[in-house]
Amino acid sequence: MSHTAELIAVGTELLLGNIANTDAQMISEKLSALGITVHYHTVVGDNPQRLAEALEIARRRADIIITTGGLGPTYDDLTKQTICKAFHRELELHEDILDTIRTWFETKMQKKMPENNTQQAMLPVNCTVFDNPVGTAPGCAFEEDGVHVLMLPGPPFECRYMFENRAVPYLLRLTDGVIVSHEIRVYGMGESSVEEKLHEPMTRLTNPTLAPYAKTNEVMLRATAKAETREAAETMLEPLIRQVQDELGDVVYGVDVESLEEVVSALLRERNLTLSAAESCTGGLIAKRMTDLPGASAIFRGGVVSYTNGVKAQVLGVPETLLEESGAVSEPVACAMAEGCRRICGSDLAVAITGVAGPDSDERGTPVGTVYIALASENGVICRLYSCGRGRGRGRVRTSAAQNAFDLIRRFLLDLPL
Amino acid sequence: MSHTAELIAVGTELLLGNIANTDAQMISEKLSALGITVHYHTVVGDNPQRLAEALEIARRRADIIITTGGLGPTYDDLTKQTICKAFHRELELHEDILDTIRTWFETKMQKKMPENNTQQAMLPVNCTVFDNPVGTAPGCAFEEDGVHVLMLPGPPFECRYMFENRAVPYLLRLTDGVIVSHEIRVYGMGESSVEEKLHEPMTRLTNPTLAPYAKTNEVMLRATAKAETREAAETMLEPLIRQVQDELGDVVYGVDVESLEEVVSALLRERNLTLSAAESCTGGLIAKRMTDLPGASAIFRGGVVSYTNGVKAQVLGVPETLLEESGAVSEPVACAMAEGCRRICGSDLAVAITGVAGPDSDERGTPVGTVYIALASENGVICRLYSCGRGRGRGRVRTSAAQNAFDLIRRFLLDLPL
Repeated sequence: MSHTAELIAVGTELLLGNIANTDAQMISEKLSALGITVHYHTVVGDNPQRLAEALEIARRRADIIITTGGLGPTYDDLTKQTICKAFHRELELHEDILDTIRTWFETKMQKKMPENNTQQAMLPVNCTVFDNPVGTAPGCAFEEDGVHVLMLPGPPFECRYMFENRAVPYLLRLTDGVIVSHEIRVYGMGESSVEEKLHEPMTRLTNPTLAPYAKTNEVMLRATAKAETREAAETMLEPLIRQVQDELGDVVYGVDVESLEEVVSALLRERNLTLSAAESCTGGLIAKRMTDLPGASAIFRGGVVSYTNGVKAQVLGVPETLLEESGAVSEPVACAMAEGCRRICGSDLAVAITGVAGPDSDERGTPVGTVYIALASENGVICRLYSCGRGRGRGRVRTSAAQNAFDLIRRFLLDLPL
Repeated sequence: MSHTAELIAVGTELLLGNIANTDAQMISEKLSALGITVHYHTVVGDNPQRLAEALEIARRRADIIITTGGLGPTYDDLTKQTICKAFHRELELHEDILDTIRTWFETKMQKKMPENNTQQAMLPVNCTVFDNPVGTAPGCAFEEDGVHVLMLPGPPFECRYMFENRAVPYLLRLTDGVIVSHEIRVYGMGESSVEEKLHEPMTRLTNPTLAPYAKTNEVMLRATAKAETREAAETMLEPLIRQVQDELGDVVYGVDVESLEEVVSALLRERNLTLSAAESCTGGLIAKRMTDLPGASAIFRGGVVSYTNGVKAQVLGVPETLLEESGAVSEPVACAMAEGCRRICGSDLAVAITGVAGPDSDERGTPVGTVYIALASENGVICRLYSCGRGRGRGRVRTSAAQNAFDLIRRFLLDLPL
């Protein structure tokens, strides 16, 4: 039997725009892997009447309802009460859960449990309790009239833990068949061109399917197959993924990888090489992204954020005359930054980025988005000029410059055209 | 007359969890400032039938419907067609819009417009056209039976531009009275403690109101007032904000500011001081956040990401003996990093961060989350020990370490207890 889920996020902070509904994104992605289709997300405020209305609509069109939020200890946390009313259940105190919450406060927070946290131990009669070792709000689930209702806490870290470790085991008991999907990541080709090259499989196929998603600065293709077993689904996907790789060529930088820096890190690790980074306009973004990955210290030695000419000269050893003659945003300075960085950090490779992030041009009138990226290795230094961000603001120039730098390193390590 | 809006985001990529619905967050925040209440967000896939159902539900409970997404040139972009069917309107070709799109391709993308982009110039009869100078998809709006329907493109950059510059002027003609809100940012006190201290205004007040929002590593309070004029609303808010500041003290780091780094940057600018950063476990996060802000070069000179001991020693000049005796994660090393960074970057202040981000303890068994933060100035160097992240993973340790560093600098600059 196939299932349809609806996600209901509860929280006025979502309707006021204080936070984005990232819980829905996380849960949707994982439900898809379980073969559970999601047709709607709904967001309501901390308002029992409107939550009740959303529940009424959801139970008519889905057989799994997953709520996030509204399980906290404060006066406006009303999810459990409202759901129980809608599904005619009572709430009861779970003494063991109360003990767990009390212990959590005493050990993790080193203080006594405030009285109002008691209400977090009130759960529906005859529910499956989802105990929460990473926060104070337990979740729960029950079935009523063929509809499964699952309640999860709203804070993203807790929600993720509780979904993976509590909701997934519950849901696995309900599903059969599998959906398997793989993500093909593309850098350096726009969505329209990708679609043109892959028009036929994208529009003709029904199982497996191939669908494009534009991400910031890149395109992701998702190939999905539904079958009895994982093996059968994989067999359906394998030729499709090969077709995509053949059509698109070396702009495909990976399958089921998270990012260009993940691919660069893996390549460095395989080749036993280290990297360092000298960053001007990206201001630490390369270093930040490299060190977001656990175990980075084996391949990333560090770097210099040379946001001012003084630091370029004194720390990286870029000759002052070069800075004066060519300007900070220039090929010779990018090369000197890369070579200086490689020398002082003692790395095998060093990447250097200098450019104009905006909002204004530099004092020489170099337009916003102009970025030089240099890569130094034992074989010398290469440099490329990029136009980043397409007038879409400072953040986009920086992100795009970092993406280009990672792609340049990837191409260098794989001996692809630079 | 007061208005109620409902947001409908269209896109299977949202239901598959490929992206979060950040458009809804952005629009909600701005609608709130216009005095337009949002009761629901809905997300549907690229499915005309389910979009039609969502429209039917929305038009019963809101008088402003704003859709995002589904205005692209591909076969699954069906928002306009579906809305026109639901509201009994025809689509017609707008020649001038077609010219604009064609020009956009030729000038911005330097290529010929693909034929399928023609459908982006098909718009409802008698609509207000929202031309789009930052992308190819124009938006539009019309009124039918007292319901205003606004269609905006989905890509976040385009959506933001189009909302601010096209939808806001349209909506301003519909509203009267204003809602004014101010955000009070708190660092260093948990949500429960904040609520305890402010229980009375949070629960008793109806206009103005005070509501808490937990953000990553901090708390935000939103004070909101509804009145005839902006001035009247401000008069209602002023004593409430003062009360919050009196109750919470110096953990309030700002009102209507975006972040601790924004406050630190403003303080540095006022005092005509410069900063640099030596980062180990945060790996460039401080530099990245400082340089996210336009004009950073006047106050942030740069820094060193000393992710390995080699870089700490050779670039920052931390004595090798110190690294061997005390270990990289220690007070003496943090202090030496800060002093070295200040010296080589030539800044007035230098902050240094060394800690264990995880997932594993360091080779001396220092637990994950242990972070030393040092701050060097012309008066010498101070250092504080923090426990960051509360076992919530590598990302949280790094974010929390960065937050603590910014707060330490803020407190130092304001002469507050450190």
